[in-house]
Amino acid sequence: MQWAGAGAVASLATKNGFAAKNAEKPDNKNTEHTFQLGLASYSTRKLSLDETLKIANRLGLKYLCLKSFHLPLDSTPVQIAQAAAKVKAAGIDLYGCGVVNMFKPAEVEQAFDYAKAAGMKVIVGVPAYDMLPMVNEKIKQYNICVAIHNHGPGDKLYPTPDVAYEKIKHLDRRIGLCIDISHTIRGGVDPARAAEEFADRLIDVHMNDVTAAEASWHTAEVGRGAIDIPEFLRTLVKIRYSGIVSFEYVKDPDNPLPGLAESVGYVRGVLAAI
Amino acid sequence: MQWAGAGAVASLATKNGFAAKNAEKPDNKNTEHTFQLGLASYSTRKLSLDETLKIANRLGLKYLCLKSFHLPLDSTPVQIAQAAAKVKAAGIDLYGCGVVNMFKPAEVEQAFDYAKAAGMKVIVGVPAYDMLPMVNEKIKQYNICVAIHNHGPGDKLYPTPDVAYEKIKHLDRRIGLCIDISHTIRGGVDPARAAEEFADRLIDVHMNDVTAAEASWHTAEVGRGAIDIPEFLRTLVKIRYSGIVSFEYVKDPDNPLPGLAESVGYVRGVLAAI
Repeated sequence: MQWAGAGAVASLATKNGFAAKNAEKPDNKNTEHTFQLGLASYSTRKLSLDETLKIANRLGLKYLCLKSFHLPLDSTPVQIAQAAAKVKAAGIDLYGCGVVNMFKPAEVEQAFDYAKAAGMKVIVGVPAYDMLPMVNEKIKQYNICVAIHNHGPGDKLYPTPDVAYEKIKHLDRRIGLCIDISHTIRGGVDPARAAEEFADRLIDVHMNDVTAAEASWHTAEVGRGAIDIPEFLRTLVKIRYSGIVSFEYVKDPDNPLPGLAESVGYVRGVLAAI
Repeated sequence: MQWAGAGAVASLATKNGFAAKNAEKPDNKNTEHTFQLGLASYSTRKLSLDETLKIANRLGLKYLCLKSFHLPLDSTPVQIAQAAAKVKAAGIDLYGCGVVNMFKPAEVEQAFDYAKAAGMKVIVGVPAYDMLPMVNEKIKQYNICVAIHNHGPGDKLYPTPDVAYEKIKHLDRRIGLCIDISHTIRGGVDPARAAEEFADRLIDVHMNDVTAAEASWHTAEVGRGAIDIPEFLRTLVKIRYSGIVSFEYVKDPDNPLPGLAESVGYVRGVLAAI
């Protein structure tokens, strides 16, 4: 059983060989971390899947959270299997998808069938409140995690991790949070505090930065913005977070590689020094 | 008097406004450093000066050490002035040039005239041993620093910072070292130890990385190689190094931006966390 819930991820990750890779990985030179770095393919939304995989490998990001631009949600099982095989052939773990809206039952069904066909462990999603009971049942049925993504002050469902946590804390432990740190700080919430407070349900992380801790925002390379990245990463180490930290670089959609590379370098530098 | 010798750089840098810029710079968010990050244009040796300036600004590197690819050493004073004006117009400080060989008197003359015409404060150079007395006189005459660049085990003149220091320690304090950390570790010397031991003559730094601490080497993005970058940067902070740390990214000459961006991000991440 893989990813049987956020609370069990630490031990499972070790069994699945995540922790064993630490010694080989450039991002773990001086500090042993329990988590790995990945790519959220929203970053490469204007590029093809092939180009996305090339960029991920260029940057040594071995975990991919796929956005529908690269594999539409209504793809056939054969199309999904082909895409998953392509990712695997590139040496990359297609661990999840998203962000996926689940506003009605058919969308919930589709998301879980899609994730299962692709062999994904996590759906980063936005379920409507009245879909949560169905999502909860699907999680038990499919054994796939759902990580609710907060989208900041404009998001009527999940503006902050706090709101999301309140909605899911009584549900199956395999439903939890994908904390998007930029949207979190835009909502006036400290991402490090949220990660620590909701550690038991932290399933995924979107790594990015914003120029100011305000609702009106501009995206930035990680390290150039308002977020205290060292503090956030120290917190992930402290809580022994053992999922993936995926870069979701929003700037420069036509040519994301330079800013993404700078962001990845920054995070690895912080991890090497803390 | 600018850059009146390595020992005096700290106070002069403050007078020249280097230290005052710290608060505005993205690379100094969490730690106040006395040094700044720059670009050695050997990194962009296959690109034009215009493209070099664009990349420097893209990465927020406001200090440039110009290689002759972008301004030949035999350029006329008018050509030199034009290039210097272009750099200034881009908002970048053309602080130095190099690496410049000075194997005979005419090359020493040319290097100092070139640097003076461009308004440079430092010549990163390789003077033949028998040119050192002449270089020493020129330094007094022009008030321009010379930073000797070590090139690793294959370099018959200056394989390590140690060898260079022995040759110049009795000369004017405005002659010192540009420690190239990759060539240093290739020579079996710890760059952090060298920086600390020769702090009084550390005038410039070339930041890069190599896959192994061996004479036979492959260049790498900073952070992916064998050098303990956090330890080296902690040492620069400790000795209150107040010159420039210039990225000399040797890989990918046709498209250096992604690897350079990753390297810059890594160093900024380390600086934010130490």
